Amino acid sequence: MNEFGIISKYFAPLTQSSSGAFGLKDDAAVISPESGYDLVITKDAIIENVHFLPSDSAFDIAVKLMAVNLSDLAAKGAKPVGYFLAIMFPKNTSEKWLEEFASGISNMIKLYGGAVLGGDTTSHNGALALSLTAIGQVKTGAMIKRSGAKTGDDIYVSGTIGDSFLGLNILQGKIKGESDYLVSRYKKPQPRVELGLNLVDIANSSIDVSDGLLADLGHICEASGLGAIINPDVITLSEDAEKFIDIKYSHLSGGDDYEILFTAKPEHEQKIQQISDKLQLKITKIGNITSSCGVKLINSQGEEVIIEKTGYSHF
Amino acid sequence: MNEFGIISKYFAPLTQSSSGAFGLKDDAAVISPESGYDLVITKDAIIENVHFLPSDSAFDIAVKLMAVNLSDLAAKGAKPVGYFLAIMFPKNTSEKWLEEFASGISNMIKLYGGAVLGGDTTSHNGALALSLTAIGQVKTGAMIKRSGAKTGDDIYVSGTIGDSFLGLNILQGKIKGESDYLVSRYKKPQPRVELGLNLVDIANSSIDVSDGLLADLGHICEASGLGAIINPDVITLSEDAEKFIDIKYSHLSGGDDYEILFTAKPEHEQKIQQISDKLQLKITKIGNITSSCGVKLINSQGEEVIIEKTGYSHF
Repeated sequence: MNEFGIISKYFAPLTQSSSGAFGLKDDAAVISPESGYDLVITKDAIIENVHFLPSDSAFDIAVKLMAVNLSDLAAKGAKPVGYFLAIMFPKNTSEKWLEEFASGISNMIKLYGGAVLGGDTTSHNGALALSLTAIGQVKTGAMIKRSGAKTGDDIYVSGTIGDSFLGLNILQGKIKGESDYLVSRYKKPQPRVELGLNLVDIANSSIDVSDGLLADLGHICEASGLGAIINPDVITLSEDAEKFIDIKYSHLSGGDDYEILFTAKPEHEQKIQQISDKLQLKITKIGNITSSCGVKLINSQGEEVIIEKTGYSHF
Repeated sequence: MNEFGIISKYFAPLTQSSSGAFGLKDDAAVISPESGYDLVITKDAIIENVHFLPSDSAFDIAVKLMAVNLSDLAAKGAKPVGYFLAIMFPKNTSEKWLEEFASGISNMIKLYGGAVLGGDTTSHNGALALSLTAIGQVKTGAMIKRSGAKTGDDIYVSGTIGDSFLGLNILQGKIKGESDYLVSRYKKPQPRVELGLNLVDIANSSIDVSDGLLADLGHICEASGLGAIINPDVITLSEDAEKFIDIKYSHLSGGDDYEILFTAKPEHEQKIQQISDKLQLKITKIGNITSSCGVKLINSQGEEVIIEKTGYSHF
C-alpha cells in the first residue's frame, strides 16, 4: 500500500468528517476558533527508546503520543479541537501496525474529542519517531499560563505522583517486582483534560507534570518570578507506588506523571474540592507560592529536605 | 547545555517577541487569526537520508524544513504567521550545529515572515528528524483548494521544473557533471509565498509541486473529480536542466520543485501575466482541465506521450 492508500484507509476516518480537514487530501487544513475563543497550540514529539520502548504496542504508542500533547492542552485549560500527526516509521512497518496505531488515536479522540486534521507520513531506515501538534481552544485571554502564579497562592497537584517513573523502572528491570497498575500509568497516561477545563478562571498558573514534579514546579516559579514551599510528605502516592519507592522522595523527580500542577488563591479551596469530588480525582494541596525564588521542601517534621536531581532533561 | 538552555539561547530569539509564544517558556502557544481570516495549517517532516543528505549543512537543512512547509502555505494562498518546530537530533549534536540551524530558520523568517511559536527538542541515538507545523492566514473561505479546479480552467506552473531532481542526482553521482544552480535548487528551494498571496481570488485550485508535476496535477484532478491535458513540450526548463536531462520528460516525475501548479479561468490570463511580470517569476500555461478523468500528455506534434513513473511515493 502506498502513502496515499495508507492515509485514506487509516487516517482519513480519524478526521471525523471535519470540513477543514478536506479528507486529508489537501496540502493544508483550515481552522478557526469559535468567536470569543483563542486557539492554544502545542507540539510534542516522542521517539522509540526515549519516550517509549520498542516492545510497546502500536496502540499504546498512539495513546502516549496523544496523551502527552493532550496533557499540555489540559494544563492550559483548553478544549481539544484538532491534531496534526507526523509519523516517521521504519521501512518494514506492517499494515497491522498502522491499523493498531490508528485505532489508538481513534480511541483517544473518542475519550477526549477533537479530530485529525492533517499531517505527514514518511518511512525511513531508522527508529520510529512521531510528532503531534495538538490544537485546543480556550476563551479569549483565559489560557492558564505558567507565569500567572501569585504570592500566597496555594499549590495543588492532581492524582498520584511517581507511578509512571516506577512503571518504567519495572519495565527496564531496574526495580524488581511487578505492577500492572504502575506499568499502565507509564504506558497509557490519562491526560487531565476535564480537570483543565474546570480550572479556567480558578487556577492562576498551571503546568502538566512531565519533567518531574519539582522541575515543573520550578518552571512555574521561574516563569512567575516567584518561589514555592511544599511539603513532600503530603504528596499522594498510589498503593502500588508505596510498595516500590526505595529512595525517599525519588518520585518528586521522576517524569511522565501527566498530572496537573497548578496554583490558585486560597479563597478557591472549596471550589477546587468540589471539582475534585465531581471528577472523582484526588487533588492535593501541597504548599504555597512565596515571594522568594526557588522551590523549598519542608517536611512534616518541619525539616528542610534537599533533593539533588530535580527532573529529566533530554541533554 | 541542557534542553532549556538550548531553547532559550537559540530558539527563543526566533519568536520575534510574539506575545502568544510566551518566550517558549509555556506548555503551549496562543494564536488567533485576525478578524475575517481563517488559519491554514500544514505539517511536513523531513528526515536525514530521505529528504536531505547527511553532508548538508545545518543552515541548509533549516532552510529546507521551512521551505517545504512554506510552499504548502503558498499553494493555499496563505500568509505565514507562525511555526512549531520539533527537532529530534542525534546525541552528539554540537552547539555550532544548533547555532547554524537557528540561523537558517531566522533567515527564512526574515524572507517570508512569521515567527517560531513553539515546539519540542529531543536528542536520541538515531538520525536527525525534523517536523514543522506552519500556520498561515487567509481571508475566511478563500483558501485555494486542490479540489476547486473547473472544466475549461487553464493550468499554469511557476518557474522551471526538474531542477531539484537533477540537483539531487548530481549530488548522488547518478548524473555526471556539476551545476551549482541545480544543486542549490535541491538544497534551498524557494517557496513561492508571494505568488500564492497573489493567486487568492484568481486560482480555482492549487498545489505545490513536491511529489512531481504529473503526480501533483493528478492530485488536483482526483480532488476535483476531473482530468487534464497538458503539453509537456511547453514546460519550462532552466538552462542547466536542458544540459543534464537525459531521459525525455523525466523532469515531469521528479519531485521537490516547490513551484506552484494552479488552475484558473481563461479570463484571468492577463492578470496572471501581470503577476508574473510584477514578481519577475515565469508562469507558464501548460494545458487545460477536462471533464474526463486522468492526466493526458499531448506533445507539440499532437502525439500522446506515455510516462510510467509519475511521481515519488514514500512507500
